[in-house]
Amino acid sequence: MMLKEEIQKKIDFKTKPQGALGRLEELALQICLVQDTLSPVLNKPEILVFAADHGAASAGISAYPAAVTAQMVLNFLSGGAAINVFCKQHGISLRVVDAGVNYDFPESNRLIDAKVAKGTQNYLVAEAISAAELSQCFNHAEHIVDAVYQDGCNIIGFGEMGIGNTSSASLLMSYLCELPLEDCVGRGTGLNDEQLAHKMNLLKSAREHHGEPSGLHQALQFYGGFEIAQICAAMLKAYENNMLIMVDGFIASVAFLCAHCLNPKVIDNAIFCHESNEKGHQLLLKHLDVKPILGLGMRLGEGTGCALAYPLIHSAVLFMNEMASFDSAGVSNKTA
Amino acid sequence: MMLKEEIQKKIDFKTKPQGALGRLEELALQICLVQDTLSPVLNKPEILVFAADHGAASAGISAYPAAVTAQMVLNFLSGGAAINVFCKQHGISLRVVDAGVNYDFPESNRLIDAKVAKGTQNYLVAEAISAAELSQCFNHAEHIVDAVYQDGCNIIGFGEMGIGNTSSASLLMSYLCELPLEDCVGRGTGLNDEQLAHKMNLLKSAREHHGEPSGLHQALQFYGGFEIAQICAAMLKAYENNMLIMVDGFIASVAFLCAHCLNPKVIDNAIFCHESNEKGHQLLLKHLDVKPILGLGMRLGEGTGCALAYPLIHSAVLFMNEMASFDSAGVSNKTA
Repeated sequence: MMLKEEIQKKIDFKTKPQGALGRLEELALQICLVQDTLSPVLNKPEILVFAADHGAASAGISAYPAAVTAQMVLNFLSGGAAINVFCKQHGISLRVVDAGVNYDFPESNRLIDAKVAKGTQNYLVAEAISAAELSQCFNHAEHIVDAVYQDGCNIIGFGEMGIGNTSSASLLMSYLCELPLEDCVGRGTGLNDEQLAHKMNLLKSAREHHGEPSGLHQALQFYGGFEIAQICAAMLKAYENNMLIMVDGFIASVAFLCAHCLNPKVIDNAIFCHESNEKGHQLLLKHLDVKPILGLGMRLGEGTGCALAYPLIHSAVLFMNEMASFDSAGVSNKTA
Repeated sequence: MMLKEEIQKKIDFKTKPQGALGRLEELALQICLVQDTLSPVLNKPEILVFAADHGAASAGISAYPAAVTAQMVLNFLSGGAAINVFCKQHGISLRVVDAGVNYDFPESNRLIDAKVAKGTQNYLVAEAISAAELSQCFNHAEHIVDAVYQDGCNIIGFGEMGIGNTSSASLLMSYLCELPLEDCVGRGTGLNDEQLAHKMNLLKSAREHHGEPSGLHQALQFYGGFEIAQICAAMLKAYENNMLIMVDGFIASVAFLCAHCLNPKVIDNAIFCHESNEKGHQLLLKHLDVKPILGLGMRLGEGTGCALAYPLIHSAVLFMNEMASFDSAGVSNKTA
């Protein structure tokens, strides 16, 4: 019998009607296939929050000032953000990666220094990222994920923080999905109608300024940001290490889209944790033909969707290992 | 300032864009209002699984033999069912209430004896529950919930096990929501098309046999079951004790509908944990104008939706108590 059939049989002979655990059964199957086992295990779950600043942030694409990126990183380091609370709740290790924040942080065991520059260039007038910087992004992220893997982690999630980064994500999505910008641009952290129209005009200008990118790498150089490029590289490295990859909201999903563009196999290990309230995310999930676990109307980023979905992923693993079978429990099975 | 405004202000000044935690913010508001506090707490979470047999079960309304009710109760008692796994995962106390199973169980500290009879009468030919039995159901359930409350629990979930109980639930829903039976009857634990048509015919016969009930109590007497009546009473008592009430899938939601019919205020304390894959549940949630937390395509019962949603309810409480505010974290707020 093929492994897939054996896994399905194990799922079907648990003491429940076939398919009655719905999405959890699909997750169990996926995780068993990735781990090549009937008895999956989650080891040392970790979430990395990649933070970076965006040159275009001061042009009016975000409801918040650019300084909030650094302020929120300090909040992560002192344990006061939503992602801190949810990681602590579920025993998930949390670290912040400084991929390019415009601030000199004090040393902290919660902070990984992968700073490429103090923010990207403004894509309204220049390339956001140089070729050399993009290469640095990939190198940094690969080393970071390798270290996490070697420490024994087999399930990793990626969050982001970067004022202005929904705009970069929208530009990348529009290019990679071949969808009109209007379908990919939303309110981010809370723009009103007028601000949204302004953001849309700026992003159209950015696209006109650069013209059509020649491929993914050039698109990342045109639009940034450092955190998106690093998450893309981190996901590819996590896949190479056969780790489970928890995908968060809109921006993390665009980073996944970039990774998927370079290696479509990465989708085998990806668990889509939630559907964000940010316009574009629903369409992106549909484009990837994937189903998110949670739909809580959130739009925060930071990896919060991963942290909140983690206990459900864990439930899928636990039922496979701990539930009785019809035989072992002496329960009549209609299929028997 | 009114408490509701104070709670909303506390939520809005956490270090996140307003509304960015979506459904969790609504949960936090609800829980704070129920507990009349800005600093909510969940104490000694408990799930009670009410089990009972149905006289009509042997007529062909279920994919499984009636003996499975008792077999599954034994599975709960030995820790092998899905609800055991998920309760253990989240530190939720789990007990089974024998509301009327056709079996003599050995004593167990996981089992509460509230047996009214060894199953209901077959509603195809008789009233499922007598007036005296219905009164016993209410008495038993009220005492059980009072004891749980006095032990310090302030959040309680209700699961059910009873081969044939989706049929009783469908009959009750159709009557209470004034909806055609066709909208309320589904495949339960997995009927095929032919079996589903047979079930529909049987339920129509049952309705013709009894005629229109004179009210909720008579509807419960006509159609049963003991576990539905006991969960209804348990929810009302939990509300009286100001406990948070976790509502599970289709059958538990119909029990809630019964409770709501007797005291509409019960909805203030109710948290709808998931949307079941059973036909009728989506319509029922719409009828009650409530939003479930999870949509995992499950159709198992046992209280599994409550157990899986519990960590998200807990997250709502934790972010209220543990997240930093814009002021305390020194983060710029666009609204400041």
